Amino acid sequence: MTFNDKTPHQLDVDDLPTLSELKNEEISVKANAPVTVVRRLPRYYRFLRDMLNHDILRTSSTELSKLMGVTASQIRQDLNYFGEFGQQGYGYNVKHLYMQISRILGVGSKFTAVTVGTHEFCTAFNENRMFEMRGVRVRGSFNVSCSEDLSSLANFCRDNEIDIAVINVSEQLIDETADAVINAGVKGIWNFSNLEIRSKELAVQNMCPGDSLMMLTYELNEKGKAAE
Amino acid sequence: MTFNDKTPHQLDVDDLPTLSELKNEEISVKANAPVTVVRRLPRYYRFLRDMLNHDILRTSSTELSKLMGVTASQIRQDLNYFGEFGQQGYGYNVKHLYMQISRILGVGSKFTAVTVGTHEFCTAFNENRMFEMRGVRVRGSFNVSCSEDLSSLANFCRDNEIDIAVINVSEQLIDETADAVINAGVKGIWNFSNLEIRSKELAVQNMCPGDSLMMLTYELNEKGKAAE
Repeated sequence: MTFNDKTPHQLDVDDLPTLSELKNEEISVKANAPVTVVRRLPRYYRFLRDMLNHDILRTSSTELSKLMGVTASQIRQDLNYFGEFGQQGYGYNVKHLYMQISRILGVGSKFTAVTVGTHEFCTAFNENRMFEMRGVRVRGSFNVSCSEDLSSLANFCRDNEIDIAVINVSEQLIDETADAVINAGVKGIWNFSNLEIRSKELAVQNMCPGDSLMMLTYELNEKGKAAE
Repeated sequence: MTFNDKTPHQLDVDDLPTLSELKNEEISVKANAPVTVVRRLPRYYRFLRDMLNHDILRTSSTELSKLMGVTASQIRQDLNYFGEFGQQGYGYNVKHLYMQISRILGVGSKFTAVTVGTHEFCTAFNENRMFEMRGVRVRGSFNVSCSEDLSSLANFCRDNEIDIAVINVSEQLIDETADAVINAGVKGIWNFSNLEIRSKELAVQNMCPGDSLMMLTYELNEKGKAAE
């Protein structure tokens, strides 16, 4: 979904709202915003950023609805949760909305990260502007293929006060690797390995890309049946 | 979550149920199984495979509940949807359950794929056993950095009857790349780029890894606040 009538320009990382800029903003997320609503925020973030990239500064629930393929009433309900009301005859202020959502999601919190995996995995990630766009600084990369590789990773995390470890190691090494970075002060793990990590203390996102691949093969079979 | 008392062995791709093996199995997915239940199936698949890797051949909703961190009653409800009932005093047959879920998810359908992206992205994917484990054959890789690169990709897809394109190209090239592979007969897109692809005809999974990164930074901030 792109806006073909305008040439996009990439928002620079410096265009991101900084915490100090946002400090004076009235950001009131209702305490009872359910996690299902929070999970939808990254999608709003992407669509709003795309609008800003095309110099679109105001929008409506109807326009967002068409772009995002969800109902306008769901959009109004969602945005209502963090105190953002569209104004009659004006709609939503795209930049304000984008800044609010960015802040809620922790963009601009200046977290630091390391990538842990094969050379190719780390390079693919380090070259991705995804981190930079979200204010996360990748400080180092480590190839962990046996337990002995873990001490230099742990030392680096400790010395550099790393917040996030992006991990893609073999199933045999995942528990050890997680323990090593946690003991070295890492507070969040973005896990791309095949085994889930679960923790109440730690922030964890298990990607399990294979799950998504199977949803694709499921869909392929379903659409194939429908076409028969 | 691992079973520390047993040494795991990797299930070989040849251990996967083949379609002919499964043909004679009674697989009755209730027509009304909601998509939320289907979306949970890949997770069951992973945990059941891990059990098989540890030679655990039967299980109960209580055991699955502890491993997976969901309630036993949800597990019973979910499995009920595809006609699998635990037997009193025996529980569930892990291999049977694994085979049923594999079949529903299209594992073993022998789909073919190409990876499209930087050398590092493609290598990281091609080396991942994730595809092989799910019976998907990666037949080729293409680096698409401008429109001119698209014709050899399209020709390859056409000549090799490729089912799936795994795509990670720049935002500027995503629409053109999608069009090129669709016109060349590809039926499914696994999209790792920053822009969503939406299609009613095509099977599409939009990964949007940045969304997951933001859920992690959100969680980091929330846990940080709680600790203050």
